[in-house]
Amino acid sequence: VKLAAIVVRTNMRFFKLTIAYDGTDFSGWQWQPDRRTVQGELERAVRQITGESTRLIASGRTDAGVHALGQAVTLATESQLAPDVLCRALNANTPADLAILDIQTARNGFNAIDDAKGKRYRYLIQDGAVPNVFMRHYAWQVRQHLNVDAMHEAAQPLLGTHNFKSYETAGSPRVSTVRSIRDFFVRRQSWNDTTYIVMEVEADGFLYNMVRNLAGTLVEVGREKKSTTWPTEVLAAHDRRLAGMTAPPHGLYLVRVNF
Amino acid sequence: VKLAAIVVRTNMRFFKLTIAYDGTDFSGWQWQPDRRTVQGELERAVRQITGESTRLIASGRTDAGVHALGQAVTLATESQLAPDVLCRALNANTPADLAILDIQTARNGFNAIDDAKGKRYRYLIQDGAVPNVFMRHYAWQVRQHLNVDAMHEAAQPLLGTHNFKSYETAGSPRVSTVRSIRDFFVRRQSWNDTTYIVMEVEADGFLYNMVRNLAGTLVEVGREKKSTTWPTEVLAAHDRRLAGMTAPPHGLYLVRVNF
Repeated sequence: VKLAAIVVRTNMRFFKLTIAYDGTDFSGWQWQPDRRTVQGELERAVRQITGESTRLIASGRTDAGVHALGQAVTLATESQLAPDVLCRALNANTPADLAILDIQTARNGFNAIDDAKGKRYRYLIQDGAVPNVFMRHYAWQVRQHLNVDAMHEAAQPLLGTHNFKSYETAGSPRVSTVRSIRDFFVRRQSWNDTTYIVMEVEADGFLYNMVRNLAGTLVEVGREKKSTTWPTEVLAAHDRRLAGMTAPPHGLYLVRVNF
Repeated sequence: VKLAAIVVRTNMRFFKLTIAYDGTDFSGWQWQPDRRTVQGELERAVRQITGESTRLIASGRTDAGVHALGQAVTLATESQLAPDVLCRALNANTPADLAILDIQTARNGFNAIDDAKGKRYRYLIQDGAVPNVFMRHYAWQVRQHLNVDAMHEAAQPLLGTHNFKSYETAGSPRVSTVRSIRDFFVRRQSWNDTTYIVMEVEADGFLYNMVRNLAGTLVEVGREKKSTTWPTEVLAAHDRRLAGMTAPPHGLYLVRVNF
């Protein structure tokens, strides 16, 4: 199977889609043969509405199990449907674990990857001896009670512009490993009688698995196996082998893409 | 298949188990042949740990799709395991959507149905044009924005002791249809960037489908199709045909059983 690349025709219009998905039953964003992916389901819905076989571009190619509250997607189409009509039509043709939240007209040539100025991710952790049955697909379940104040304190020196090479998983290297974190907090919240930990981080961009590597590292601080200065020492070493484990995908949410 | 009834032996000990389950993949509490039920899974775990084929008693026999945050269950066993050891052992033998939160020693002859002094239920509703992908198994998704203040106001006259016959679904009649509601509120909350509506009700006991019938009725008020006094008029009529629809099971949670 070969999908057509985007060929810009004179009457082609560009849209920015904001979508949400429960990553549990998807093999990630990116189209794969014989796999249920977000891109595959969304491209199928577009084909049903417009008759076009198009290739969609997402700001973040989330891995299997990763969720999205506000993923941004470029759609280039010859369809003359109004954005709100297109939105309702697509939602009527997507499965229950994928929703189009909003469609906005975008400038000609809009690209959800190149035009993104930053992203916000959330990582949920549910700690305690008995894992909450409702969080099993939606948070990393850690059996030990974690020290949230220590995790938050350890995160603060990572704010600002640094070389995050220590927090990049090999396999998908970027040209530069310098990124600027604009917001970074760890705090406890509650939902349906259970408490859980929210780690939220906003930056101009992220390296491969950076949020999951930060989560895995901060959990070591939360377990009180490592000091609150350890994540900063790891940062300074520029060596991935020193950081904590890569936290599992099902705790991760792409919250928002900034343009 | 025939399971043994509880035969009280001299060395039998009684325990009160507090359990939570995600009702999505269960055909309700009650044991059924060839169906995955909470009772079936829990009795299997007890058999694996104690070697006993016992019949467990739950305070509320929740229907398929209904969730529990704190269901109470009687276990009578000859096992001499300490409660905390028994709890860990059972949790190691239950599936991920079923958890034993606590085990307490109970008096000889303790019965989770007869000894219950009251129950608390929660009903979650997620309103808005685009259903939240994460709530699809955990809340009733209503496409229209609901007036929560009107729903709360309409619920208040139902507090106290009344004949709730209008809110009882036929098929499982109780001797008396008089019940006392001790707490009843409707309010908006938020979780993971979405807002949803919580209806919570505590009473000395509930008629069959009473909470789901109350939810279905209050949603008509929330849609502003009915006035805030209508649920009280329905109550006074003692006629089920006048109330709203039975809300779907997957919004319902058994929160707590009081003894």
